[in-house]
Amino acid sequence: MAGSEIERLIELLAKLPGLGPRSARRAALYLIKRKENVLEPLSTALKDAAANMQTCELCGNLDTVNPCAICTDARRDTTIICTVEEVGDLWAMERSGAFKGLYHVLGGTLSALDGIGPDDLNIAMLEARVENGEVKEVILALNATVDGQTTAHYVAERLATDTSVTVTKLAHGLPMGGEIDYLDQGTLSAALKARRPA
Amino acid sequence: MAGSEIERLIELLAKLPGLGPRSARRAALYLIKRKENVLEPLSTALKDAAANMQTCELCGNLDTVNPCAICTDARRDTTIICTVEEVGDLWAMERSGAFKGLYHVLGGTLSALDGIGPDDLNIAMLEARVENGEVKEVILALNATVDGQTTAHYVAERLATDTSVTVTKLAHGLPMGGEIDYLDQGTLSAALKARRPA
Repeated sequence: MAGSEIERLIELLAKLPGLGPRSARRAALYLIKRKENVLEPLSTALKDAAANMQTCELCGNLDTVNPCAICTDARRDTTIICTVEEVGDLWAMERSGAFKGLYHVLGGTLSALDGIGPDDLNIAMLEARVENGEVKEVILALNATVDGQTTAHYVAERLATDTSVTVTKLAHGLPMGGEIDYLDQGTLSAALKARRPA
Repeated sequence: MAGSEIERLIELLAKLPGLGPRSARRAALYLIKRKENVLEPLSTALKDAAANMQTCELCGNLDTVNPCAICTDARRDTTIICTVEEVGDLWAMERSGAFKGLYHVLGGTLSALDGIGPDDLNIAMLEARVENGEVKEVILALNATVDGQTTAHYVAERLATDTSVTVTKLAHGLPMGGEIDYLDQGTLSAALKARRPA
């Protein structure tokens, strides 16, 4: 083998989601063969991220500034907050370009199995933001999983004490390009119930 | 989004084999959330690799020393050279623990389609090593692909001028745990031809 240095690199790469031991080896070789173009830039990018990335104290987003660029963007609608499970979900919403309000990252879902209770999630901060008065609507954009929906239900109840805010959730239905023949019954019946004039 | 810094990180991660744009985003998030345990060590490991990795001038292996640790290991059998396409193949052979001789990395295969001729591969150096006299056998451990077998044939011809060296190739047959029902015809007929007393 090529010594403990590369073993260490492979070991670290194998920790990344999506890379196993075999693909980590391939990635390590790929990196070493492309020293100037990929290896060194990646090393620098990681160092910069380690030095500068921080969690936004308002919404829980990750950014190089705190509060994050979204929370301080004057063009965004501050009366509506989209609540998501993880930062990755926030990124997905931003990629869609369909939402111009603010976000709130819960940092996971309630899970009895994993021992994650309400205090482990970023819910108190969401309440505090809602109580500020400017917020008119909270969208619960949680995953359509059991844990996601349980959490959505719980957060909705917590926010129900404040009657000045509307709590909504994402619609269920056919995904774009989805074929009915391949769709699960749950989605299909949700899409049917939520049918609208054509 | 979380700014251009993280976009750059995602872009670089997406270049790794096995990671696409989506899994690169997941990997970036994973890294940023595990700053001390993964992100910073990975950044350091990459920096070290960029600084120290070099190609062995004898066999073409990658190592922090040149000649590499395998070429200078006194316990290894210097009369037998296992020729492989890429450094990854050398690693795979080493993992098997079945080979205690030296290696030679060709750096690819002949390919008319990609315009890769004999001069683009590390063949002249293999001839020079064989001509040194100590080498008794060259194993051609090339992939069982068209390009791999073409290259094996070519290398065998080049080495045939030196009559003191035996050129061999890996056996074809059933992979360990392989089920005959799922095996391709080529492998099956090769395994049948190469059958041995039980």
